[in-house]
Amino acid sequence: MIAGCIEAGGTKFVCGAGTAPEDLVTETFPTTDPQATIERAAAFLSSYAPEVVGIASFGPLDLARGRITSTPKSGWENFDFAQAVAERLKARVAIDTDVNAAALAEHRWGAAQGIDDFLYLTVGTGIGGGPIVGGRTIHGLVHPEMGHVRVPHDRERDAFEGVCPFHGDCLEGLASGPAMQARWGAPANELPPGHEAWELEAHYLALGLANWVCTLSPRRIVMGGGVMQQAHMFPLVRAELERLLNGYIQADALCGEGLESYVVPPRLGNRAGVLGALVLALG
Amino acid sequence: MIAGCIEAGGTKFVCGAGTAPEDLVTETFPTTDPQATIERAAAFLSSYAPEVVGIASFGPLDLARGRITSTPKSGWENFDFAQAVAERLKARVAIDTDVNAAALAEHRWGAAQGIDDFLYLTVGTGIGGGPIVGGRTIHGLVHPEMGHVRVPHDRERDAFEGVCPFHGDCLEGLASGPAMQARWGAPANELPPGHEAWELEAHYLALGLANWVCTLSPRRIVMGGGVMQQAHMFPLVRAELERLLNGYIQADALCGEGLESYVVPPRLGNRAGVLGALVLALG
Repeated sequence: MIAGCIEAGGTKFVCGAGTAPEDLVTETFPTTDPQATIERAAAFLSSYAPEVVGIASFGPLDLARGRITSTPKSGWENFDFAQAVAERLKARVAIDTDVNAAALAEHRWGAAQGIDDFLYLTVGTGIGGGPIVGGRTIHGLVHPEMGHVRVPHDRERDAFEGVCPFHGDCLEGLASGPAMQARWGAPANELPPGHEAWELEAHYLALGLANWVCTLSPRRIVMGGGVMQQAHMFPLVRAELERLLNGYIQADALCGEGLESYVVPPRLGNRAGVLGALVLALG
Repeated sequence: MIAGCIEAGGTKFVCGAGTAPEDLVTETFPTTDPQATIERAAAFLSSYAPEVVGIASFGPLDLARGRITSTPKSGWENFDFAQAVAERLKARVAIDTDVNAAALAEHRWGAAQGIDDFLYLTVGTGIGGGPIVGGRTIHGLVHPEMGHVRVPHDRERDAFEGVCPFHGDCLEGLASGPAMQARWGAPANELPPGHEAWELEAHYLALGLANWVCTLSPRRIVMGGGVMQQAHMFPLVRAELERLLNGYIQADALCGEGLESYVVPPRLGNRAGVLGALVLALG
């Protein structure tokens, strides 16, 4: 059975059709208004006549209704995404957030294969987390919005106020790519490895990780996104996480070399989103 | 079938035998050394010949082995609790943390009946959280240790350094009962409702809740423990949680009156632990 999948981002859509990562055929195009964008996705997908389409979407989402709720993206607010796709393609639809879907893909084919309790985190334009508990994503009231946790703001080292329009100095406000750019006056990928920016960044991210270790008790943390493409960040984050936990939670994975396989990069790179949509479709 | 249950606390054991909360017969005695304490529990339980015993234990625990790991409680470090009970009573044993077990009890018979994604929190001598996701407790690497999350420490209002021997000013260090007593020089239950202590306490607890809303997306938060027996705390915590989330997560439950059924007291009071052990036994 050929499954359809859609990774819906704020700037581009990636559509795919296939039965597995190896045979997935994809097409990428810019996100415009909902009607035109869905039509373009349908034009691609309908030639494969998929019975089921997985959607990994930007949010926030009302997952029960398959609807995008509040978004600054023109035309997409309150858009019944799942319903529109289901009607246009006469297919069943499974929808989740882009981050949750990427977590599912890393679980099925990537850096967390066989690990049913782990955390996928992406640090880039925003900070998003997809916690997998017992092999499944978390829904509950809405869905996780992990970038918006509050962590201690080290005002002695860091007078920067944060960029989150809702919370100012929440984790995303202090440690996303745009926060780094606003604080240091240059995009993260132009800051050299020895720049003081990276130690501060590792500190804030490790505060988030420490809190999630205490809350979710993950067996592994997979950290992706543009900011984490700086490979020198991994040793910094691991060391700071160990320092912050201070031996309270006793587990080999949280000590010294154990951390090297505890806090790891993703394996699927920028394919995680569309492959996540494929997991949603395949079930 | 009569099930056995043990609520193992650092100062007392509550043992029970029965088929449901209504017919549960219990016996309570002080916690001494492991051998004597288990023998006393066995003396009570063996007369009911339970096939299965649920244990809700203080921790930290190695849940895979049913063992207490690091504890300052003399004689209990590295004690194979589940194995000792299984051998002595020739019964199957199911073990979880006291907080996770209490969460299961509030889920089955208490303030979160029918709500498969919620958070049980206790604020007393320590701060502990039992997140229920899809009707089940979280294990993963170890188990949640939610009291030890770091939240912003408002040093302008609060110069107090915190009481956690591992982290100083983690949430438990700032907002547990002992933290209140150390900061204000009087136990929490002697501070009058209008005392400034309560607004600060509500602020710290709401910071924890806001982070857990962003992480776990619970459909309800049940707050128990000695500190939360002050009924005037609930309106303070709800208002502060709404202020901190600042409308970012759109859900009726997180606005105004919706919060009255979102942040709620437990229903089982001090029976939650032993009833949680009963849930573990009944499966």
